[in-house]
Amino acid sequence: MADLQGIVDEIYEALVPRLGEGRVADYIPQLAHVDPRKLGLAVVDVDGSVYKAGDCDETFSIQSVSKVFTLTLALGKHGENVWRRVGREPSGSSFNSIVQLENEEGKPRNPFINAGAIAISDLVLAGHTPREAIGEIVRFVQYLANDEQIAIDPAVAKSELATGYRNIALANFMRSFGRLDHPVDHVVGVYFHHCALAMTCTQLAHAGLFLAAAGRNPLTGHTVVSRERARRINALMLTCGHYDGSGDFAYRVGLPGKSGVGGGILAVAPGKASVAVWSPGLNHNGNSLLGSLALEMLAHRTGWSVFGP
Amino acid sequence: MADLQGIVDEIYEALVPRLGEGRVADYIPQLAHVDPRKLGLAVVDVDGSVYKAGDCDETFSIQSVSKVFTLTLALGKHGENVWRRVGREPSGSSFNSIVQLENEEGKPRNPFINAGAIAISDLVLAGHTPREAIGEIVRFVQYLANDEQIAIDPAVAKSELATGYRNIALANFMRSFGRLDHPVDHVVGVYFHHCALAMTCTQLAHAGLFLAAAGRNPLTGHTVVSRERARRINALMLTCGHYDGSGDFAYRVGLPGKSGVGGGILAVAPGKASVAVWSPGLNHNGNSLLGSLALEMLAHRTGWSVFGP
Amino acid sequence: MADLQGIVDEIYEALVPRLGEGRVADYIPQLAHVDPRKLGLAVVDVDGSVYKAGDCDETFSIQSVSKVFTLTLALGKHGENVWRRVGREPSGSSFNSIVQLENEEGKPRNPFINAGAIAISDLVLAGHTPREAIGEIVRFVQYLANDEQIAIDPAVAKSELATGYRNIALANFMRSFGRLDHPVDHVVGVYFHHCALAMTCTQLAHAGLFLAAAGRNPLTGHTVVSRERARRINALMLTCGHYDGSGDFAYRVGLPGKSGVGGGILAVAPGKASVAVWSPGLNHNGNSLLGSLALEMLAHRTGWSVFGP
Amino acid sequence: MADLQGIVDEIYEALVPRLGEGRVADYIPQLAHVDPRKLGLAVVDVDGSVYKAGDCDETFSIQSVSKVFTLTLALGKHGENVWRRVGREPSGSSFNSIVQLENEEGKPRNPFINAGAIAISDLVLAGHTPREAIGEIVRFVQYLANDEQIAIDPAVAKSELATGYRNIALANFMRSFGRLDHPVDHVVGVYFHHCALAMTCTQLAHAGLFLAAAGRNPLTGHTVVSRERARRINALMLTCGHYDGSGDFAYRVGLPGKSGVGGGILAVAPGKASVAVWSPGLNHNGNSLLGSLALEMLAHRTGWSVFGP
Repeated sequence: MADLQGIVDEIYEALVPRLGEGRVADYIPQLAHVDPRKLGLAVVDVDGSVYKAGDCDETFSIQSVSKVFTLTLALGKHGENVWRRVGREPSGSSFNSIVQLENEEGKPRNPFINAGAIAISDLVLAGHTPREAIGEIVRFVQYLANDEQIAIDPAVAKSELATGYRNIALANFMRSFGRLDHPVDHVVGVYFHHCALAMTCTQLAHAGLFLAAAGRNPLTGHTVVSRERARRINALMLTCGHYDGSGDFAYRVGLPGKSGVGGGILAVAPGKASVAVWSPGLNHNGNSLLGSLALEMLAHRTGWSVFGP
Repeated sequence: MADLQGIVDEIYEALVPRLGEGRVADYIPQLAHVDPRKLGLAVVDVDGSVYKAGDCDETFSIQSVSKVFTLTLALGKHGENVWRRVGREPSGSSFNSIVQLENEEGKPRNPFINAGAIAISDLVLAGHTPREAIGEIVRFVQYLANDEQIAIDPAVAKSELATGYRNIALANFMRSFGRLDHPVDHVVGVYFHHCALAMTCTQLAHAGLFLAAAGRNPLTGHTVVSRERARRINALMLTCGHYDGSGDFAYRVGLPGKSGVGGGILAVAPGKASVAVWSPGLNHNGNSLLGSLALEMLAHRTGWSVFGP
Repeated sequence: MADLQGIVDEIYEALVPRLGEGRVADYIPQLAHVDPRKLGLAVVDVDGSVYKAGDCDETFSIQSVSKVFTLTLALGKHGENVWRRVGREPSGSSFNSIVQLENEEGKPRNPFINAGAIAISDLVLAGHTPREAIGEIVRFVQYLANDEQIAIDPAVAKSELATGYRNIALANFMRSFGRLDHPVDHVVGVYFHHCALAMTCTQLAHAGLFLAAAGRNPLTGHTVVSRERARRINALMLTCGHYDGSGDFAYRVGLPGKSGVGGGILAVAPGKASVAVWSPGLNHNGNSLLGSLALEMLAHRTGWSVFGP
Repeated sequence: MADLQGIVDEIYEALVPRLGEGRVADYIPQLAHVDPRKLGLAVVDVDGSVYKAGDCDETFSIQSVSKVFTLTLALGKHGENVWRRVGREPSGSSFNSIVQLENEEGKPRNPFINAGAIAISDLVLAGHTPREAIGEIVRFVQYLANDEQIAIDPAVAKSELATGYRNIALANFMRSFGRLDHPVDHVVGVYFHHCALAMTCTQLAHAGLFLAAAGRNPLTGHTVVSRERARRINALMLTCGHYDGSGDFAYRVGLPGKSGVGGGILAVAPGKASVAVWSPGLNHNGNSLLGSLALEMLAHRTGWSVFGP
């Protein structure tokens, strides 16, 4: 798109006066130290051109955005059997709710709420030690982004392990229903580590490019998943990717997306581009406030929307 | 699309052996009398060509599919103020759940669950008697479909009025929170009547065509809503249109859609076509079993999906 | 008890400085007009002696206290079959919650929450018109209290009929599960009328005397219920009589009791006395604030408690 | 009571034909090995006389009955501050529900559901190592029963530690709300150990005698708690002692009681006697089936009831 760089620059400029808005997540101590005035954007189109602005090359904790990659990995290993472990429906409750688990016998509603992603970690562990599983996830994300620099931030992983009581509760709860195959500390170990992946917007947009391009990364030529699976992962991102704000994101932005409490969002414009934004201040649903706004502006100015010409 | 008629015919033939599967809704006495072996399909593309098969020209009770039209009407009258009355999030519970209402002070989660559509009926009533509001809805649907034959089935409306205790409960419950402006019997009167609209698949596909064509009905030339509003209605259909089976429908079919317990489904392929299917047997989520399958087959064979090229 | 009148007087004097505390119920318009500084106490012991203080001979709306009498009446008509319609467990939620009904297929948890009392009204209606059923309830309460002056306040009954949307919702909701035998408007008509009974503390204490005296009113000599049934009604009052404050009332007061939003409480000291208090200001659980305190003081000074010598 | 031994014998004989009914708890592996045909009864009256029958001198795992003793201990150490940590209301849900915790910010409804007893274990830990806290609990129960033979069954404690995922989930969940002062593994260690106390019916009836005798053990002369606190503990047992079957137990038996999944029940007839029964088969609420029946028969034949003369 001819003037995409211009649009990206405009969005960044328009949001500069609002830097610092929203509330930085503080339940993971390491995240609370982040500068709330950061804002980065990166767009990679299906031809491989990159358009970016702001703090787009600074690493941040991608947190729940990583769930897109572990789901992709688990689907590769277990195929449609994944759905025996997690559902595919929006949850109608917050990201860390345990109520739904009790009502549905320990089966998480979808792979993007915390409980669901923990169940996916259990699947990724199959046949592996925790260390191996974590290594496999990191290498998979490096492969997706074609960038071997991507790594886990050990301080964040450790911080989550020390304070993630709610997630440990979720895992023990699922275990009590017989829904995990591996020891709880192995499973949450894998979960906390993949959430601690540190990436830049540019890396993240590259890592998601296969979802915009029918399952194939046009820059490397690697076919990551089938065309149909790429669509299906996008469908899950659209209906479940923003917790209890998914409907609102679909309404405002109109693109599949997955957010993380670190303030990052990965969005996909199928057939067009992969987009990553980052701004640490969150809205009341736990999604990046300026990041959501940036995506809404981008969708509006480019006309990108899955919901209409 | 050259061979779209061939695809429609193939789908019908493939499903003939399964006619009668699913469970016909019996909670509205009049609906229980419907022949469970009916199956109709109609596709109208954005050029106005029509492709159809089976019982596509037989009228059926569109029930909750009508909620798409009343929402469109309410948005026309009240604009974004509609969202003061109903939310935009998937409910995570069944179509007639009252639990969510108690937890969220009587505000329905979205306009497509029963409580939400009742709130929309209240908005459509503004400045009208019930009779006038019902008349306005019928004329609006006739206008959308460009067909003055469309009418309400009075026996179905009466049947619902006599037995719709759960919906009357929902309305009284919302009224107790001050969330309805009009008397409960007026509001549910409007609601039960618009749910009793009788339409054929062909009529229904025409009525939804504006959603596939950026808000404008290409056959009549009428601009019904703006391009942006068409996208947004499609977004709501995708995230909330199939109750607690919306995620699954998005995963399997990949198109915005709205189902009704009469067995009808309206689906939208943005920029491509409007599709209506009808088969009375329902799956466990209360959506047409063969209708969902027909749409899954259609999406697969045409490649239509909002989630990828 | 020699100095019971002294104790009653002391309690009244001790609470005079706090008259007006609490929040008067305003959801029934007629109740909102009551003078918040009222406080009445009446104790009738099993020998028939009466001890009283304050506004003990002024009528007030007994509201949910009436549920004790309709339950007694329904048990007389239907025996243990009553428990096919309502449970016997504390609800763990507020008096007018509908969530529990959805989770348990429309069967109320106990006869003292609103939904349960509505189900009891349906049982009292068996074989009667609403007018007859209401008449039977009034005569039954007159018989219990041995006082033909007791009557329903028609202004309160009418006020509830006009604004009781939540109770109408509960009744329609139960009807949708097939849990009511009579038309909803008949059932809520009976319910709203018995809640509108106007009684004085003195009358109310007399009406409850049979529960303190093994089922027999010692003043009239009438055996109202068997010894065992009197115990069982007391058990229900203790576990369920104060909605979600029942545990706290048992902890502090230690006697079976039933409260109403009009500010009245009937308490029973088995083998000792029947006690009625009235003060319109309510605590956060919807029970009379000063009335609860008066009963706590009375139990403390008399040593009356079902939980120990 | 002259013929109390006769009544106890009759009850045992009457239930012999039903030995083995109910379902033995199997979620703790060690408990599943118990002979389902066991039945023991022991009554100790306030004069110290003992009446017993069946397997009354065989030890069993008292499980949740121990919560009465840890609550008593915590009240002794922390007084009414205990109620900052746990509520006093019936839960309206099952013994191990986590839903209530999420709705009420991690504060358990009462000290007798699992979450509440875990919070009490945290209080008992104050100033102690887990080993010391466990030792203190054992010595306290020995003191109550005046029997130094009472001990924890280490195999049961270990079995719970290895499989108690749901309780570990509850503890982590409360910890996530900042509601535990000590490390989760310390707290659940104490909890699992006191639940693994092995006692006979005779020992258990002696241990509960102070609750029947105004806080003082008449056999040892020790004042354990004040008269008022004994009443209050009895009140909590009555409203909350049988999980979601507490209302039914109050209705049928009419005495304060606390059950455990090992099949034991401790019941208190204030001013009369302390009663312990044991039979491993449970009813659908997780309370001893024959044990409940034995208590219902005992209450009926002795006339003991807190709810009436």
